[in-house]
Amino acid sequence: MSMAVEKHGHVIDRYPSRVEPEPRLKNREDPVVWGSATHGPLSAGHLEKYERDGFLTFDNLFSEKELRAYQAELSRLSQGRNVKEREETITEPGSGEVRSIFDIHHLSAVIGRLCRDERVVMIARQLLGSDVYFHQTRINYKPGYRGTGFYWHSDFETWHVEDGMPNMRAVSCSISLSPNTEYNGPLMVIPGSHRKYLSTVGETPEDHYKHSLQKQEIGVPDDASLAQMFEEGGIASPTGSTGLVTFFECNMMHGSNSNITPLPRSNVFIVFNSVENTLANPFCGLKPRPQFIANRKGFQPIVAVSGG
Amino acid sequence: MSMAVEKHGHVIDRYPSRVEPEPRLKNREDPVVWGSATHGPLSAGHLEKYERDGFLTFDNLFSEKELRAYQAELSRLSQGRNVKEREETITEPGSGEVRSIFDIHHLSAVIGRLCRDERVVMIARQLLGSDVYFHQTRINYKPGYRGTGFYWHSDFETWHVEDGMPNMRAVSCSISLSPNTEYNGPLMVIPGSHRKYLSTVGETPEDHYKHSLQKQEIGVPDDASLAQMFEEGGIASPTGSTGLVTFFECNMMHGSNSNITPLPRSNVFIVFNSVENTLANPFCGLKPRPQFIANRKGFQPIVAVSGG
Repeated sequence: MSMAVEKHGHVIDRYPSRVEPEPRLKNREDPVVWGSATHGPLSAGHLEKYERDGFLTFDNLFSEKELRAYQAELSRLSQGRNVKEREETITEPGSGEVRSIFDIHHLSAVIGRLCRDERVVMIARQLLGSDVYFHQTRINYKPGYRGTGFYWHSDFETWHVEDGMPNMRAVSCSISLSPNTEYNGPLMVIPGSHRKYLSTVGETPEDHYKHSLQKQEIGVPDDASLAQMFEEGGIASPTGSTGLVTFFECNMMHGSNSNITPLPRSNVFIVFNSVENTLANPFCGLKPRPQFIANRKGFQPIVAVSGG
Repeated sequence: MSMAVEKHGHVIDRYPSRVEPEPRLKNREDPVVWGSATHGPLSAGHLEKYERDGFLTFDNLFSEKELRAYQAELSRLSQGRNVKEREETITEPGSGEVRSIFDIHHLSAVIGRLCRDERVVMIARQLLGSDVYFHQTRINYKPGYRGTGFYWHSDFETWHVEDGMPNMRAVSCSISLSPNTEYNGPLMVIPGSHRKYLSTVGETPEDHYKHSLQKQEIGVPDDASLAQMFEEGGIASPTGSTGLVTFFECNMMHGSNSNITPLPRSNVFIVFNSVENTLANPFCGLKPRPQFIANRKGFQPIVAVSGG
């Protein structure tokens, strides 16, 4: 087990990226599963699957009544006055429709409760083997008809380079508040891709996030490396009805196609980070991204609330 | 059964579009199936399904050996010198990669033979209840990684307005030369949508095809009409391995999402029109589109060649 360690006052960059002239695919240095089957709701089988594939899905964590309440809250939030003017709101490149609202656990008490719900927090704690805190929270809307996709990327690559997250000890949790079909641009992942780390090519520009949250072009994989990962792992796409919960490892290669169907997609997205993996200075040397994208102020452990 | 008839020297426009200020969804005036189960390879069950859904798929019309030869020819054609400079070649908006090559039965003897293969021609004849000719032929490449989608549209709407095709008595045939998975931006159709005709809003610009073959914006359905069609018919997506053959009715609402997977998609695309439905002047009043997009010079019946 490797940890980022202090050396001459600096945290060692174990996952350099965007610095070499060629992309490089290397093995990850961190464990995938940090906890054990004896501490938490997941079985040994769950943990084995997560170790191998990098993701887990759950169909029935929430009741229909709960889901309806969360849907109503999402609808309310997206139609809120001035929502498009908020710094935490990202709009679609073409249509200007709301694509994401960040820092949602502060903006909405209802969604904040969902983010602290023990049914998800206990899974995150078990996977990361420690207390956890919110690295990022947001709600995503992928409009129907003209919803744009998102190109392949590893979240960890960006969180490491641009936010200073030292190690791979974070997990994303997506809670679907609309049906995810094969037609409406669902999340696609490359199973097993979380076990490699791809250092990408291209220097991070200043204020990269202002562009990359709409359309990422720096920090994305080159065609040859992506083909190699695909050759080894193929593609999987968790689809299912409203309420589908997907946990996926922070270094998983994932993306989505566009959505021309009339069916919008929306979800609540929570990034849990280990309290033993709090942010250092960004490894790209630039100033940190805004607090609402990468929490670096409050690392206090989440106090889970009982659900239902 | 309605036919476009001469009146004062003009063919009556039974399917006006792009002329009214509001979109309008009306019933089609033409039969869907023009032939009978006693004349051709399709069973009464096939014809009923085509009548209801507007499409039919076949898995095993061609042998693996035949498919490999056609794949090799497609590869040769896409890498041909000067291919991107040809008028008949359409490139991707962003990357400049080859997207389609039109009039392919003239350019390639190998693909020309496939277009005349009795295994597809006899099906087209049976569906259209007459001899058939080539309205359009092309090969399509949808590159991996950055393949763009195609928004919903009815081919007939364009063929009628911009090419002067009088009636709904044509059928498209797509022969896949790569696997069609749910992930790589496959054809999506709205079953049953061929039984309605949607007159769209917006005037046809001069030389519309120069833009619309990359990205169509005029002649596409409005959101409300599309939602209504989707509500009634849902979405279907013929997926399958190399060699999948899909026949779909000329007025079928169809489209595709983008393709970020490394898997390209390629197919041979043949539009058969009835010899009793040959082109009049474009109903939009503009000059006809080029010959390679809409054949108006040679309406001679296709002489089918025996396959295998």
